[in-house]
Amino acid sequence: MAQTNRQIVLDHLPQGRLTPSTFRQTESAVPTPGEGDVLLRTLYVSLDAANRAWMQGATYRAALAAGDVMAGGALAEVVQSNSPDLAPGDRVFADTGWQDYAVLKAKHLHKLPALEPVTHLLSVYGVAGLTAYFGLLECGQPRAGETVVVSAAAGSVGSIVGQIAKIKGCRTVGIAGGAAKCDLLVRELGFDAAVDYKADGLRRALRGACPDGIDVYFDNVGGDVFEACLFNMKTHGRIACCGAVSQYDGDAPAHGPRGVPGLIVTKRLTLRGFIVSDFDAHRDAALAELKGWVESGQLKVREDVIAGLENLPAALIGLLAGENIGKRMVKVA
Amino acid sequence: MAQTNRQIVLDHLPQGRLTPSTFRQTESAVPTPGEGDVLLRTLYVSLDAANRAWMQGATYRAALAAGDVMAGGALAEVVQSNSPDLAPGDRVFADTGWQDYAVLKAKHLHKLPALEPVTHLLSVYGVAGLTAYFGLLECGQPRAGETVVVSAAAGSVGSIVGQIAKIKGCRTVGIAGGAAKCDLLVRELGFDAAVDYKADGLRRALRGACPDGIDVYFDNVGGDVFEACLFNMKTHGRIACCGAVSQYDGDAPAHGPRGVPGLIVTKRLTLRGFIVSDFDAHRDAALAELKGWVESGQLKVREDVIAGLENLPAALIGLLAGENIGKRMVKVA
Repeated sequence: MAQTNRQIVLDHLPQGRLTPSTFRQTESAVPTPGEGDVLLRTLYVSLDAANRAWMQGATYRAALAAGDVMAGGALAEVVQSNSPDLAPGDRVFADTGWQDYAVLKAKHLHKLPALEPVTHLLSVYGVAGLTAYFGLLECGQPRAGETVVVSAAAGSVGSIVGQIAKIKGCRTVGIAGGAAKCDLLVRELGFDAAVDYKADGLRRALRGACPDGIDVYFDNVGGDVFEACLFNMKTHGRIACCGAVSQYDGDAPAHGPRGVPGLIVTKRLTLRGFIVSDFDAHRDAALAELKGWVESGQLKVREDVIAGLENLPAALIGLLAGENIGKRMVKVA
Repeated sequence: MAQTNRQIVLDHLPQGRLTPSTFRQTESAVPTPGEGDVLLRTLYVSLDAANRAWMQGATYRAALAAGDVMAGGALAEVVQSNSPDLAPGDRVFADTGWQDYAVLKAKHLHKLPALEPVTHLLSVYGVAGLTAYFGLLECGQPRAGETVVVSAAAGSVGSIVGQIAKIKGCRTVGIAGGAAKCDLLVRELGFDAAVDYKADGLRRALRGACPDGIDVYFDNVGGDVFEACLFNMKTHGRIACCGAVSQYDGDAPAHGPRGVPGLIVTKRLTLRGFIVSDFDAHRDAALAELKGWVESGQLKVREDVIAGLENLPAALIGLLAGENIGKRMVKVA
């Protein structure tokens, strides 16, 4: 075991966009677990748009502060355990933060199943897959034959949402940035159509791709794309509110989309915000269904693995700029 | 029967706020019913914020156009019937528009029960009462002990929403314009607290009135009040989206409330838009329950009756400015 613990610290709370200097790398001693604790070694850190939102203020977790080790969920291995519930070698998903080693209370952790490739525990069998599954099926309530639109469709969650919608018999339209991603959605992931939000005329393009309107919109981005979808919703449509990545990397948003709440009323829409832990009670059943789809080849898993703890800042900055396809993670050890 | 039919016509589609010259009064011959039609005499015209929204574009009904007789729901009496389903003297609720007489298809109309005072058919047993009932109970899903906030709380719908929330054991907070209305809510209608949105510091006042946050917000107004409530919602709160009167009388809204969709996600809110006809299947049960509350004195009905067809434009302009308390209607005959 190494004697030092490399850490990436939030140097200051960002004003405007993240830059590499928002972070700095430091070293400390490997921490010692107390009673009931485990010492974890970070294997793969999950990169998520929400990481940026945590810098904006309290969300479903406390806000980050300058000087904190940057927070982040990771696949980690138990190195030392002072708890009967976990043993060295066990793998867990934990908020280790951006560092080699972390000490956490064992009682909040659950041993993950042995599974290959192990990265799937962060993508399709992790937060991304479960977020897609519950957000689409519970909040979106899609019915066969309906039109489902998802934004950030080439991302970790969106790429799974669209494929589950297809499995459920829906017409599926992805919104993504750039022709290459749009092409991938249709050619490789089986979307019926894709709309490039970086091209002109988003609202018109969306209308063209959804001539009968949108029954279910799975929103990962907020902002102008949310607004364009809102105007194209069908009566009694549902919007699953998963995130607002367009609003995270910069100052707090000055205002919300046009049409709220007027269109919610006249179209009788239901909007539901969620985070994945709201559905913890149904997690095992969801994982079993996801596993069946992956094994049958109906659900393709895209991952984007970058090596090296020191590359975490650039990996997050790039994710917020939309450079990844599928689930981005950084291999630390 | 009169030989002429007084009509108030939409002179032009308004730019900005309604003024008396948005309308003009004219006369035509009393129309003649065809096969399956009835000739209706308008008794009381219902004034509703939605009347203004109909001038902005298609909603749940087609947009109004210049030269149209102004649309409006009314309590009306059958004068002549070419249908076996209705007889002279029967009373119905119908979109007669702002005129003395109208011909409509009988098959879309339902005979109303005999009931005194007859005006209750437009208030507590009409669209206002049913909107309050279904919006609060179905979309809001309040539980005893929760905090329910309603905007336009002294209006036709809001005054009933707050009282039903009290009946259901909720802490009830009304938002209204001016000290007189706020006073009425607390002293006469049994609200636990009232917040004056015209005074400074709405968001702070709301926090003071709802120290634990808002579980259910019944939104009649949209705009800044919606935004203030959104920021004060509790996790897993519900917003019943009933209307956006703050946005109707003027140009189309430039943008939506801050916090959409970010706060919907982090607070895991559910927003649901509705119109009363979505719940037609449950109408009789709702009316029976409303009737029980009115007869027991638990639900007080406030009405604001103005006499004279010629006063319809001023009555609507005043309603949009918030001058009414309770259900506003104009007695035509």
